[in-house]
Amino acid sequence: MSLDETSPPTRMESDSMGSVAVPCDAYWGAQTQRSMTNFAFPPTERMPLPIIHALGIVKLAACRVNRRYGLDSALADAIETAAREVIDGVHDDHFPLAIWQTGSGTQTNMNVNEVIAGRANEILTGARGGKAPVHPNDHVNRAQSSNDAFPTALHIAIQRAMVRRFSPAIGRLYEDLRAKQAAWGDVVKIGRTHLQDAVPLTLGQEFSGYAAQIARARQAITHAMDGVWELALGGTAVGTGLNAPPGFGRIVIEEIRQSVGLPFRPARNSFEAQASRDTLVGLQGALVQLAVALTKIANDIRLMASGPRAGLGELLLPENEPGSSIMPGKVNPTQCEMMAMVCAQVIGNGAATTAGGMQGHLELNTFMPQIGANVLRSVTLLGCAMDGFVRHALAGMQPDRARLGNLVELSLMLVTALVPHMGYEKAAAIARDAHRRGVGLRQAALESGYIDAPTFDRLVRPQDMVGHLPEA
Amino acid sequence: MSLDETSPPTRMESDSMGSVAVPCDAYWGAQTQRSMTNFAFPPTERMPLPIIHALGIVKLAACRVNRRYGLDSALADAIETAAREVIDGVHDDHFPLAIWQTGSGTQTNMNVNEVIAGRANEILTGARGGKAPVHPNDHVNRAQSSNDAFPTALHIAIQRAMVRRFSPAIGRLYEDLRAKQAAWGDVVKIGRTHLQDAVPLTLGQEFSGYAAQIARARQAITHAMDGVWELALGGTAVGTGLNAPPGFGRIVIEEIRQSVGLPFRPARNSFEAQASRDTLVGLQGALVQLAVALTKIANDIRLMASGPRAGLGELLLPENEPGSSIMPGKVNPTQCEMMAMVCAQVIGNGAATTAGGMQGHLELNTFMPQIGANVLRSVTLLGCAMDGFVRHALAGMQPDRARLGNLVELSLMLVTALVPHMGYEKAAAIARDAHRRGVGLRQAALESGYIDAPTFDRLVRPQDMVGHLPEA
Amino acid sequence: MSLDETSPPTRMESDSMGSVAVPCDAYWGAQTQRSMTNFAFPPTERMPLPIIHALGIVKLAACRVNRRYGLDSALADAIETAAREVIDGVHDDHFPLAIWQTGSGTQTNMNVNEVIAGRANEILTGARGGKAPVHPNDHVNRAQSSNDAFPTALHIAIQRAMVRRFSPAIGRLYEDLRAKQAAWGDVVKIGRTHLQDAVPLTLGQEFSGYAAQIARARQAITHAMDGVWELALGGTAVGTGLNAPPGFGRIVIEEIRQSVGLPFRPARNSFEAQASRDTLVGLQGALVQLAVALTKIANDIRLMASGPRAGLGELLLPENEPGSSIMPGKVNPTQCEMMAMVCAQVIGNGAATTAGGMQGHLELNTFMPQIGANVLRSVTLLGCAMDGFVRHALAGMQPDRARLGNLVELSLMLVTALVPHMGYEKAAAIARDAHRRGVGLRQAALESGYIDAPTFDRLVRPQDMVGHLPEA
Amino acid sequence: MSLDETSPPTRMESDSMGSVAVPCDAYWGAQTQRSMTNFAFPPTERMPLPIIHALGIVKLAACRVNRRYGLDSALADAIETAAREVIDGVHDDHFPLAIWQTGSGTQTNMNVNEVIAGRANEILTGARGGKAPVHPNDHVNRAQSSNDAFPTALHIAIQRAMVRRFSPAIGRLYEDLRAKQAAWGDVVKIGRTHLQDAVPLTLGQEFSGYAAQIARARQAITHAMDGVWELALGGTAVGTGLNAPPGFGRIVIEEIRQSVGLPFRPARNSFEAQASRDTLVGLQGALVQLAVALTKIANDIRLMASGPRAGLGELLLPENEPGSSIMPGKVNPTQCEMMAMVCAQVIGNGAATTAGGMQGHLELNTFMPQIGANVLRSVTLLGCAMDGFVRHALAGMQPDRARLGNLVELSLMLVTALVPHMGYEKAAAIARDAHRRGVGLRQAALESGYIDAPTFDRLVRPQDMVGHLPEA
Repeated sequence: MSLDETSPPTRMESDSMGSVAVPCDAYWGAQTQRSMTNFAFPPTERMPLPIIHALGIVKLAACRVNRRYGLDSALADAIETAAREVIDGVHDDHFPLAIWQTGSGTQTNMNVNEVIAGRANEILTGARGGKAPVHPNDHVNRAQSSNDAFPTALHIAIQRAMVRRFSPAIGRLYEDLRAKQAAWGDVVKIGRTHLQDAVPLTLGQEFSGYAAQIARARQAITHAMDGVWELALGGTAVGTGLNAPPGFGRIVIEEIRQSVGLPFRPARNSFEAQASRDTLVGLQGALVQLAVALTKIANDIRLMASGPRAGLGELLLPENEPGSSIMPGKVNPTQCEMMAMVCAQVIGNGAATTAGGMQGHLELNTFMPQIGANVLRSVTLLGCAMDGFVRHALAGMQPDRARLGNLVELSLMLVTALVPHMGYEKAAAIARDAHRRGVGLRQAALESGYIDAPTFDRLVRPQDMVGHLPEA
Repeated sequence: MSLDETSPPTRMESDSMGSVAVPCDAYWGAQTQRSMTNFAFPPTERMPLPIIHALGIVKLAACRVNRRYGLDSALADAIETAAREVIDGVHDDHFPLAIWQTGSGTQTNMNVNEVIAGRANEILTGARGGKAPVHPNDHVNRAQSSNDAFPTALHIAIQRAMVRRFSPAIGRLYEDLRAKQAAWGDVVKIGRTHLQDAVPLTLGQEFSGYAAQIARARQAITHAMDGVWELALGGTAVGTGLNAPPGFGRIVIEEIRQSVGLPFRPARNSFEAQASRDTLVGLQGALVQLAVALTKIANDIRLMASGPRAGLGELLLPENEPGSSIMPGKVNPTQCEMMAMVCAQVIGNGAATTAGGMQGHLELNTFMPQIGANVLRSVTLLGCAMDGFVRHALAGMQPDRARLGNLVELSLMLVTALVPHMGYEKAAAIARDAHRRGVGLRQAALESGYIDAPTFDRLVRPQDMVGHLPEA
Repeated sequence: MSLDETSPPTRMESDSMGSVAVPCDAYWGAQTQRSMTNFAFPPTERMPLPIIHALGIVKLAACRVNRRYGLDSALADAIETAAREVIDGVHDDHFPLAIWQTGSGTQTNMNVNEVIAGRANEILTGARGGKAPVHPNDHVNRAQSSNDAFPTALHIAIQRAMVRRFSPAIGRLYEDLRAKQAAWGDVVKIGRTHLQDAVPLTLGQEFSGYAAQIARARQAITHAMDGVWELALGGTAVGTGLNAPPGFGRIVIEEIRQSVGLPFRPARNSFEAQASRDTLVGLQGALVQLAVALTKIANDIRLMASGPRAGLGELLLPENEPGSSIMPGKVNPTQCEMMAMVCAQVIGNGAATTAGGMQGHLELNTFMPQIGANVLRSVTLLGCAMDGFVRHALAGMQPDRARLGNLVELSLMLVTALVPHMGYEKAAAIARDAHRRGVGLRQAALESGYIDAPTFDRLVRPQDMVGHLPEA
Repeated sequence: MSLDETSPPTRMESDSMGSVAVPCDAYWGAQTQRSMTNFAFPPTERMPLPIIHALGIVKLAACRVNRRYGLDSALADAIETAAREVIDGVHDDHFPLAIWQTGSGTQTNMNVNEVIAGRANEILTGARGGKAPVHPNDHVNRAQSSNDAFPTALHIAIQRAMVRRFSPAIGRLYEDLRAKQAAWGDVVKIGRTHLQDAVPLTLGQEFSGYAAQIARARQAITHAMDGVWELALGGTAVGTGLNAPPGFGRIVIEEIRQSVGLPFRPARNSFEAQASRDTLVGLQGALVQLAVALTKIANDIRLMASGPRAGLGELLLPENEPGSSIMPGKVNPTQCEMMAMVCAQVIGNGAATTAGGMQGHLELNTFMPQIGANVLRSVTLLGCAMDGFVRHALAGMQPDRARLGNLVELSLMLVTALVPHMGYEKAAAIARDAHRRGVGLRQAALESGYIDAPTFDRLVRPQDMVGHLPEA
């Protein structure tokens, strides 16, 4: 789709600044072509297709409403057919522009306007491209501005990714962790604080904490999504709705709501909706909270699965692939690593989003493509990562019960159960003595003279030290 | 309070590791003294006092409950008196430890335990310090661990700062912006997108967007605060509640709830409450959203107030102080600068909190002092900054109505109102012609032949181009 | 290249864990296929091709050296041919794995090993794929580990991108700014501090500051690149070089150095070179410094180019494209916006790199694909952005000399030149009086009685207030 | 020092905006007092004293030079005495302003000007405060602006902290790590990649990697400090040097250089030196690289020291303090935790600095107090943390040689040494068989039939698998 290589045959297209050569087989027009020249980035930096498809949704809905306000029905028919094709991905190759363009996304909005017009004209006249009978601005973009259409598309694209990919994945993750909480409620293990041996708990309790982290992050994300259901459409250039019929935005959004089956609604304040991207900053912030939680969970699991001979060895991970190109037989916690890397990326995406979100000026935030691409990427990465993590790590993970039991037996911190009996300081002396001499806690306790054997055996029972599973 | 300087007279204090010299007039004991030696930082790095006071609240409530479970009432009386004094700030000089210590806050928890024990012993015996009759661990810390008491104190300290300082300030800010939205609803001004002239809106509409940003951020913060009302107390060492009576945490939290008059409640999951600090990560994330919004608002205001002769000159800020040490008569947007700096700091605090929040291991997050100090600082800085910004910038700010009117008159983008009449391309040609020749839009439009004067005058009326104020 | 779609015909491949079906036309083997299943991400998340090509460079050089240590020359011939094809991009479609895989990049290393073996076997036997006669581990990966080969490839890929794209672009940017410094050395303009009018300087001086920022950032980047010339190869699994002949790494690196013509050298410490990615953290940090500088420059330019009628209007940007889909004739500072967005992204990439760099464990940092992808993206984005910014913004930018002169005339801050004559306070009174009454500085000064007209006219000459251009 | 509390007796002071009541015992004047009212923050948010002292250094040096340009010698004598007292900390209580003020630091510059003038007037007249005979602007601030004096003070304060505290600490850290590299060069241990058992190396090799990380970070910091030796002084308001004698900055900087004995030099470009804070952004970036390295080192050490019974148990940390308020006898890696928290903070400070550094406008970056406070804090925290870490963790740390030896014996990854003998796949089969059956590697190998006992015993010798220590 690049002009540089073998000079495909071209046709002339024009915009308000003049005319420009465009490849004959391209649906796009002059403005798209100018942007390709002015913003030359590798193809890996293209505007994400879900944003293109979401713009297609906007154009389709707007056309349906414009028809009611007098748009010629033959033109409208062709526009709607073309927009539907864009939504369905038929023309994915015709959106060559980079994320890195004008900060309003105008060039991508025009790319979509031009491709729809170019395809509609082909339907109507047989000739691809051009601005008649369907004009990209006057007909396809009618009653819209990039400033309301583009942020609308960002919200649609992100919420669709949330609903399709992210939400099922986080749901599965939560259910898996809850199932382990139940299944491993009787597996007593040594607790560790500061990475040092502490008093015991059950493996189920430990996983209940992970489930609670995910539940909390999910709640934060759901709340943050609330504002993303609001769409800017209707504000046109600066939020006042100039050149759109009264109520236009509201009606188009109702159209969108029905066509995609998702609860979109008009922005409460159209000036904020165009001048700030705070809703996406807020969503990305909640995704960082999830990334922090997932990092903890993945790190704990790879720590407990460390070994097999010189690590903690409490969990057994499924063997998914050979771990090393040089060390035969090595198996690594690769799903944990993938998850940790994704989380580090989401944290970086958060910093990128903050940097973009804070820099808008007056009536428009001009970091929209950058912010949208980051939030969309975070949603996609986390969705895929959680899905794979459940399937390929959690599903097949097992505790090594023998190892877990041995470590509990060895622990000195069971001494804590003696504190109500003898006070902190005598208990500390026993623990320190056992540690120094390398003997068991029971031996050190009995030799201390502070306690007799029956009392020790009554007080120091790991399975009685773990309390009860949380109900929540 | 430092031992280094003139060697004040000392007494000996001991802990489970041995004895150590402590200044005679200090209430603290051996563990505090060890920490001062092991973690030598400048006094500016001390653990924030609100966290100390919150630990006092925990100790007071725990003692009241421990009394019901058999703690000697004479000891309890003395502990409660001492804890109350800590809460009231009477002993602020006796908390010399740094934020930078053990990651569980154990040393500060012991500092509080020791000071309360040391003061209670003074009450009971006349001699300051020591571990009898009141023992810092066995009595003051009874049925608690640093691992549940310290995060409890962080939540209490942060919520008190939210309620006392932050919430009133954000409320005032919102009200002031709403008042300007109403007051300036008729002030038509030129819109700007991409920092370039665009179609008009009213100054009230612009400020309605700011108010909406603040409302949205406030909602996010309120939601994020929800989890911070949960207190970890009751979990003791690893979340199981070992060595605490059943229900202890719940009862103490009810005590705290009543004593401070704030809606604290027990953590839903005690393992998560000790192993993660996700609630604070989430709150800090919402504070970053506010910082992003405030940056936008402060930047817009200083941009509109730029000048007085070579800037936009649309807003007039109150003259609070001489602006320059070398340029006489200069007045600067200092409140905007203070706000922007505070926001940059809050963004940094967010990165610091994320870095700490992601690194916990197994049963305990050991970045608690660092995370707590950052979130508390963000709350305090934003509270003070919003308060000052309202008082010293917004309250006295005025629009320069003449200047605003002149800029609207000059603008070429009023041409947009002609698009429904003549289409995008002819309108573009008129605007470009006016720009090139440096003439007014009306002149260029009439000379273009595309429109006659009566039609132009009917269509291009800025006050009719601004739509209506949002109701929300 | 995905198996999901239409079930292409397959062949069986095996690794140490068993056998797996692979598409017949794929060069890859069992481990690549496992990774596709275990790490399912969209194609936009593929490992960047420059890293693949760099691994090809490693494999080619290693094979040349392995030949000297006894690798069969027929096998070596085939391996070298295949590796060369990989380097040349012939097999780009055969590297389907995601960035999000094992944190050592082992799966991509094996993907390259398998493709080279699969292609070499095709050369030797006519049958694509398999492990004989050429084995991916025993022959292609011989004397290497992912743990030394993959970080080596990251350094090679990043330095090639630096040399090819980034360095020329920053050079052109610097030269353009220096040219403007010279060309506009006589254009006196009003200075602005705090966005408020200040004393004058020349436009050339202002641009000299930008050039100095770029020079400083370039110096920081050059210094940070120094460590990236070091390659880990030779350390094999944990840095000890087990299973590689003595000196193997050094000799292969010499081979690489000659084949790519770049000054690579062996790592000073092979343990650090595998356990940390500090060199890339450092380079990314220097890139953030550049991003900060470029943000300032882009922001200043769009501020000075704001208008055309209601902004500062000091600079005239080239009109590259229609700026608005709704406002005809609008021209926006799109190159500045692109640059600012890229810089925000680079800042986010920095946070992502830091998060990955800080989390390595013991003998290996397992965030390598994530770190490598971020740094490579930063280099690429900044290179493209600077290149476009020079071509499409700086090259055609012009000062509006008339406007610049008018603003200087109006300014009140010329009063500063009176301070040595009458002191700060009298000068301040004059400036404040002029501001309040809306009169010129000269009028207010003469009416103040503090100065007479000849003295005023001698002291207040903007062109004498700008000092001299910096020589550096 | 606050006016709010008990209304101390006041005197009237004035500035160009009018008069204001100031506490009688304060040296400061009207502008300081205004700032206290306009920027009300807690005392913990005060401008760091090292910046105040550095401004004292600037004022002293400027006065010495102003004397040569005609400043009355009686006034100069008094100013120099007062400035010297400020430098020496005599008047530390008279600098009550917050970091959060005007972004140029003008109010702190004026605070210093006023205190010096107020003290000089006391010396000359017996009456504290006032503006005669010594005027804060006309005499103390003579030939300076906040815009050159304040960034000069930031550079001085930061470099003094680097030289006094940071550089010795990083030097000690490096030396300690190098000593361990040498001392533990013969301690063979099991390597771990992906937290999974790998081939062996020596503990000395592991620590050589840490030393190399520190050396690399130190080199980056030294390079980044280079630009911080440049001082902005001489540029006055916007970099042109207006109202300063030619060469004034250069001469004052020479004075500073001699008075503090540090190699400061004039900024290469005075416009950049005032409009950007890129040098500090660069230095903070290098400090983040160090924080990343230190996080790795601290994390590795606490991982290797995990236990004592249920962890890796390879390193024994000194027992500095009781670790738990509830678990007797617990010892925690508190120095590692302090270090990790400090590093998380430095990373946050980096984000704060980036946010401030990117937002300057035209002739001045107005985030100077915020940037300066962050970089200074990073330098101080890292200096203290490294110092404590060496003294209280590294100095007393010991390997558990028996434990280290046992873990090597148990490891399955010694199988890697068999690869050159039998190829990757047979070796993998042996390792997997040993793992599944829970037997030793030797047993599994011999039972496989792939190797005989003498060959196995010759090839699998951990002490022969560790290569040689790096020389660097």
